[in-house]
This record gives sequence, C-alpha cells and structure tokens, in this order.
Amino acid sequence: MNAQHLTHVDEAGAARMVDVSAKEITAREATAQGVVLCSSTVIDLLRGEGVPKGDALAVARIAGIQAAKRTPDLIPLAHPIAVHGVKVDLDVQDHGVEITATVRTADRTGIEMEALTCVAVAGLALIDMIKAVDRLAEIGRVRVVAKSGGRSGDWRRD
Amino acid sequence: MNAQHLTHVDEAGAARMVDVSAKEITAREATAQGVVLCSSTVIDLLRGEGVPKGDALAVARIAGIQAAKRTPDLIPLAHPIAVHGVKVDLDVQDHGVEITATVRTADRTGIEMEALTCVAVAGLALIDMIKAVDRLAEIGRVRVVAKSGGRSGDWRRD
Amino acid sequence: MNAQHLTHVDEAGAARMVDVSAKEITAREATAQGVVLCSSTVIDLLRGEGVPKGDALAVARIAGIQAAKRTPDLIPLAHPIAVHGVKVDLDVQDHGVEITATVRTADRTGIEMEALTCVAVAGLALIDMIKAVDRLAEIGRVRVVAKSGGRSGDWRRD
Amino acid sequence: MNAQHLTHVDEAGAARMVDVSAKEITAREATAQGVVLCSSTVIDLLRGEGVPKGDALAVARIAGIQAAKRTPDLIPLAHPIAVHGVKVDLDVQDHGVEITATVRTADRTGIEMEALTCVAVAGLALIDMIKAVDRLAEIGRVRVVAKSGGRSGDWRRD
Amino acid sequence: MNAQHLTHVDEAGAARMVDVSAKEITAREATAQGVVLCSSTVIDLLRGEGVPKGDALAVARIAGIQAAKRTPDLIPLAHPIAVHGVKVDLDVQDHGVEITATVRTADRTGIEMEALTCVAVAGLALIDMIKAVDRLAEIGRVRVVAKSGGRSGDWRRD
Amino acid sequence: MNAQHLTHVDEAGAARMVDVSAKEITAREATAQGVVLCSSTVIDLLRGEGVPKGDALAVARIAGIQAAKRTPDLIPLAHPIAVHGVKVDLDVQDHGVEITATVRTADRTGIEMEALTCVAVAGLALIDMIKAVDRLAEIGRVRVVAKSGGRSGDWRRD
Repeated sequence: MNAQHLTHVDEAGAARMVDVSAKEITAREATAQGVVLCSSTVIDLLRGEGVPKGDALAVARIAGIQAAKRTPDLIPLAHPIAVHGVKVDLDVQDHGVEITATVRTADRTGIEMEALTCVAVAGLALIDMIKAVDRLAEIGRVRVVAKSGGRSGDWRRD
Repeated sequence: MNAQHLTHVDEAGAARMVDVSAKEITAREATAQGVVLCSSTVIDLLRGEGVPKGDALAVARIAGIQAAKRTPDLIPLAHPIAVHGVKVDLDVQDHGVEITATVRTADRTGIEMEALTCVAVAGLALIDMIKAVDRLAEIGRVRVVAKSGGRSGDWRRD
Repeated sequence: MNAQHLTHVDEAGAARMVDVSAKEITAREATAQGVVLCSSTVIDLLRGEGVPKGDALAVARIAGIQAAKRTPDLIPLAHPIAVHGVKVDLDVQDHGVEITATVRTADRTGIEMEALTCVAVAGLALIDMIKAVDRLAEIGRVRVVAKSGGRSGDWRRD
Repeated sequence: MNAQHLTHVDEAGAARMVDVSAKEITAREATAQGVVLCSSTVIDLLRGEGVPKGDALAVARIAGIQAAKRTPDLIPLAHPIAVHGVKVDLDVQDHGVEITATVRTADRTGIEMEALTCVAVAGLALIDMIKAVDRLAEIGRVRVVAKSGGRSGDWRRD
Repeated sequence: MNAQHLTHVDEAGAARMVDVSAKEITAREATAQGVVLCSSTVIDLLRGEGVPKGDALAVARIAGIQAAKRTPDLIPLAHPIAVHGVKVDLDVQDHGVEITATVRTADRTGIEMEALTCVAVAGLALIDMIKAVDRLAEIGRVRVVAKSGGRSGDWRRD
Repeated sequence: MNAQHLTHVDEAGAARMVDVSAKEITAREATAQGVVLCSSTVIDLLRGEGVPKGDALAVARIAGIQAAKRTPDLIPLAHPIAVHGVKVDLDVQDHGVEITATVRTADRTGIEMEALTCVAVAGLALIDMIKAVDRLAEIGRVRVVAKSGGRSGDWRRD
C-alpha cells in the first residue's frame, strides 16, 4: 500500500470498500487502549467505597464487546470480520479508568478498528454511567498499542 | 439526582434504565468535541494536497451522524431519543482534525451521549480512512462542551 | 425551503441532519409504488398454479414493513420517525408484481422516505424469492404517489 | 435447482433459509445497476453548478456500501455473507443518475442480492437528498447486469 | 378490537402494521416474567459459591434491557415505542432463575411485547452463560403478569 | 471446558468473549424447541376456521429466521456465526403451537444459541399476533433438543 494515498478512496476520490477477497485467512490480534478521565468522587464510586458499584464496570465491558462485533455497521468502509475473541480490561486508577481491549480473529483483514471501537464504546458507556456525578469526564488517548498477524506482521507502539 | 450515587444502578447495584416517562418534552441541545491527532502527511492528504481527498471527511461526518441515531443501540442504558438535528464539523488543523458535533432534540432526556457518540464514531471512521498512512493516529479529548435545555438548564465547559 | 438548494448539505457542502425539533407533530401519510417486472413463469408460481406459493408474498410484505421502521438506519440523513402504521399491497399482474405501500405517522417530518424504502425493500425481498427462476427480474418505477399532512399539505402525483 | 419452484419455500410453502453449509467457498462477484430519474434542476445541482454539491453523492455512495453489508438484515431469507469489496459509481447524466455497484466476496453463495441492495439503497439515499427540489424523482431499472464465480458460472445480461 | 380476529392481518390475511397514529400518548407499564430452569451446579455458580460469579447476571440484565429497546426490530409488526424505563430482576432460586421485567413508556400503544422480549432475551443470555455447565437448561413460562395504562386499563394475571 | 466454571467470565469474574480463532471450521447443526400455549379460540384462528389466518404463521417463521441471524447482536458474548441454513416448523396443536427450529452452519463454534433464539423470537412474534385475542398466551419449554458436529460430538435430549 502506498503510504501517500488515503485508503478507502479511489483515484477519483470516491469512497469504496477495498477488495480483500484474495487475501488469506490468518490469525490476527490487535490491542487498543484509552482512558476515561474523571473526578476522584467517581473513582471512589467505581471502587465501591460506601455505595454499591454494582454493574457499572460490567456495563462498559459488555458495551465494548458488543461494539467490537458491530464495527462494520458503525464504520462505513470497514469489512465485516468474524470476531473470534474479545477481552476488555477496566483498570480503575486515581486519575481515571484505563481501558484495554484485545480482539482476535482468523480472517482476511486486520482487526485494529474492532479493538479501537471496543475501547471507544466502552468509554462512552462508562461516561453514561457517571455523567450525573461528573459532567467533565472525558475520553482520551484512544489508540492501537499492538497488533500481530496478517501481511504487515507484528507491531508494538513504543 | 444525588451526585454521590452512580446513575443507572439501583440500590442493590443492578443495572436498570431510569424511568423518564414523567419528564416533560423540551427542546435540548448538546455539543461535544474531540480530536484525531495524526501526522503531517495525513494532514496534507486531508487538505487534498497532491492527491484527491475525495470523500474522506464526508465518510467521517456521515458515520458520526448515523452513530448519533444509533446511540441507544450502543450504550446499554441510554434511552431511545428522537434525534432531530445533527451537525458535525471537521476542522483540519496542523496537529490533527478537530471534531465538533451539535445534536438537537425535543424529547424527555438529555442528548449529551448522542453528541459524544457522534464525535467518537466520526473519529473512529476517520482513523479507519488514514490508518494505512499513520498507524499512530489517536482519538483524544472526547468531551461535552455545552448543553442547553432540560431541567438542569444551560451549561458550558470553561 | 429554497428549491434551488440541495437539502441535507450546508452552505459549505457538508452533510448534516436538518434540525426539525421546532416543527409541530402532525398526522402524516405517504404512499409509494413500484413494480417487480418478471417472467410469466414467475407470475404462475406467485399465483400458486401447480406449486405452493406459500410464504412468498408474505416474505416481501414483512421485509417491506420492517424496512420502513429501519429507514433512519439505512438513509444516513433521514430523521428517526415513529412509524405508526404500514400497509403493503402486492398485486400480481401479468407483467409483474405491483407494490403499493402506505405509511402513517404523527411526527415532526414527512414519511415519504419510509414509504419508498418499504417499496424498494419489499421489491428486493421478492427478487430474492424468485431470482433462481428468473435472473432477469428487475425493480422499476419506485416513486412517491401521494402524501398528506405536514406543512406542505396534500399532494398527489398525476 | 429446479427452475419451476420458488426458492426459499419448502414443499409445504413454508419460508426457510436454504442450507448452503456444504457449498464451497469460492470468489464471487456481482454487478447491479439502476437509475434515479430526476429533473434538470437536480442535475445542475449535482454537477455543482452555482451551489456546492458537497457531500451529496458521497452520502449515496456510503449508504449503498453500508446497505450491501446489511443485506441479510434486510432480506429475510438471505444468507449472511462476508462482503469483501464494494464499489459504487454514480454517473450524473442529463436524465438522471446512473448507479452501478460491484460487490465481491469469497463465500458459499452468490452476492447478487448485495449488489442489488447496494444500488437500491444508494438510490433511496439520493432521493432523500433531492426530494425537496424534485418530488417526482424515481428509482428505475434496478437489476443484476453481470455475475461471475460460483457453481452457475459467469453470466452477463445482454 | 374484535376478539375473534387476529390482529396484524387484514381481511385478506395480509400482514400489516395497524395504524395507531390517532391513539393518545399515555403512560403505560407492563410486567412480564419467565424462568430459566437449571441444575443445582449452575445455581451454586450463580450464587458465587466457590468461584466468582462475576458479570454473569449483569450480562443477562443488560441483554434484556437492550432487547426491550430493539423489540420493533425483532417483532415484525410491532410499533416502534420510545422505551422510557426498564428494570430487570433476576432472582436465583433453588430450581432456577426467576426473571421479572418491568417496562414503562409514555407512548401510543402498549408495551407488553417489550416486557416479554426483555424477559426472553435475558433468559437466552443467561442460557448462553451456563450452557457449558448445563446443556439441559431451558426457558419457561414467559408471560405478561400485569399491565397498566392505555385504553384497556389495568390488568393483573391471577 | 471445566464444567465447574461459568463460561464467558474470566478468573476475576469479568465478562469476555472466549477466543475461538484456533478452533476448526466444521459442519454443525442444532435443533431447539418451544411452545406457545394459547386458548382454543386462538387455535381455531390459526387453523383458519372461519376467518383468514393469512400471514400469521409466516410472520412467526420469518421473525425466527431473522433472529437466528441476529443472535450475536442480541446475546452479548455470543460469537458471530455465519448461519448457513434455518428451518422453522410451527405445528398448530390443540393446546398451543409447537415450534421447532433447526439451524446449520460450517463455522468454528456451536450454533445452539442461534436455534434457541430462533424459537424464542418466533414465539414472541406469534404472541404479538394473538395477544389481542388471548392475553394469557405464554411461551414455554424453550430448550435445545439435539446437536451434531463440533468437538463435543452429537447429542440428543432424552
């Protein structure tokens, strides 16, 4: 792929879904991360101090997993991919909740968008849970941190 | 609403969709922002320097508008809201693309989640367009910047 | 609305969902029509001559009704509308199947797109039923034939 | 397949999804076409004469691509197919906009319905963009024009 | 409504979505129940005896809430309804898990189908969590137990 | 798989989608059953005695087939599976309607959830058709009755 061209638009600039039917099925994995920055009051609530945190983190995890499956419905030019495994970790720290998602497939194209979508939507669902307590909460640093498999090989963000 | 409790979980911690059927229908508006940080190569491409940028920004705008409509499908405890207007601005700057979304409704509950979802998914769709050129691109600072209407009145992030 | 401008794009050409939150809720109805042109062999089968036609027309009717509900998911800039009633007639004639759909709502904006989507998808579902028998089948003349209610009043195609 | 029977209904007339699990995975391609007939005023607007046409054609292209992916959700008895590539051309001519969609896959069954759905929904999205300017616009001649791959081999409409 | 006719089919037997646009918006509530019958091993696991039950019940609750929102997408002739509140209780008893869902709206038609869909899908999601431990698990007695609001007034199953 | 652990939660109790990318693609089939218990008045209507039953059973069949395809969207931790064949039988008996669904695939994991979802949603759609005539109708005994293929081999409920 020529790095000087935008993928997903042809030479006339028209959006298209790039043909991957001739690519091989190989095992692929991608990991993405992001963070929901929020107040210390929210952090206390998510740690269950004083009041039940209940399903709060579960809602975010499940929203992320479901969004990974729905990536081709959300991202117009993304290929449908059979998502074969998803793991979402929510790590409640003092400054916010670090979200890490790892997605695996055996399919014809990369799964980075699924991992990013998983993190972004888990973050949105978490914001929805806490927005009445902290209207300043924000999602930051949603990015791919590692990928393996496929033609372009393994890669890890430094 | 007591700021010391997580919304969306009851006293036993169980997730539930809070009943809003008794709330009044009022005009509401929310604006959210975020940014896709990317390389100067991508910025040049998005500005159409040398190669056609084509539908690249249109894809992100449309993905954002559609995601705003699909918010209750993505966010487990969000209420279905009749989205009555959506505007997405993509401002290509030197460091990245600033995304601003304004969503309007006349309904029973706030529309901040729709605005945030619009920004996050527009950002994801933009990443999908540019990821072959810049695998380090990331989405940052997805947050509500203003809201008006509804019981809690007008608010603007400082 | 100025008939010299495309709806759904702003003065800079950017797609947006036009704000309808200030429009009144009124009863609205739209009727659309279309036709699936097909061979006489198919017509005989759909009339149940010799073999059971079974659920063939029911599948098309149901696909059309469901598509009417899913219009805002399919048409990027369409507003979500509460579809309050749908009727799909399939009239098997010698040259093909005439499809007529009438959709009703009490909402803030017109329901022509729902009626058109209903007809088009009923037509697609019918093609799917018959394509093994007639690969030349085609959908034609999908158009609005009447509308009533709303600001622009009643209208009937001549 | 016996051309004298409707596919998708069994001997008692009950709708069913035909079992294709034993069919081989092969590369398949289908091309469909259709037209949106509209007024010369619309044609001028879509050519960008005097006012920005902006995202108008992009919206239709993207709606078509997304609909191709959503075919099994719209067409009750259609098999889920992994869509591997989609290209939508919109050719603005004097009498209307000719739409051509080519869809590719490597899967167990044909992809004609995906190509037809792509054309029909691109046409619906285009109508949505122009309906305020031309309420007489209509979609016509939605049909398969070529297919290749699979058991039944290559075929081209004359 | 004449109790001697099937709703949703017209006098010719054709499926249609009954027009409710003239019905008034009123507060409505429906409660449905069902049970997932399962082995004592599963019950022990769901009570968290020995191993973490973790998100198991949360997954079922969230699946039920989301399914309530998606009812018109699942049930072909159901009207889109703005779901305004959903509560799902999962009561782990010795013989199985009793599921109770209460759904509220302010809309033009009843919300029984949303309550039933919520219970059925919560049950399906629970089965999915436990099926590797108990392949004999089954869903039983999914039924409406109470409704209030709307033209037909309050009702409670004896 | 250790029968003493809940699938779909990890050792800390967090929901996850189990990785199946290393499993082989094999032909798999599952059959599920359930029943809609209803009054003799409904049975008479469904048998078409006196009034046209029309599309009533077709609606339930089609809803079931579509739900089978949408299983991964409804069941949070279910894997996307390419559904390759679905058959739904509705047997109108004196006490109610017996529903049997058989689903087939060639994929990496079992298809029992698709069969169960098909039966449950066919049942819900049938309830929707008859609820105005019989508000006491209920869905019962939704369960897997047989499966074949895959690592765990063939199985039949006694």
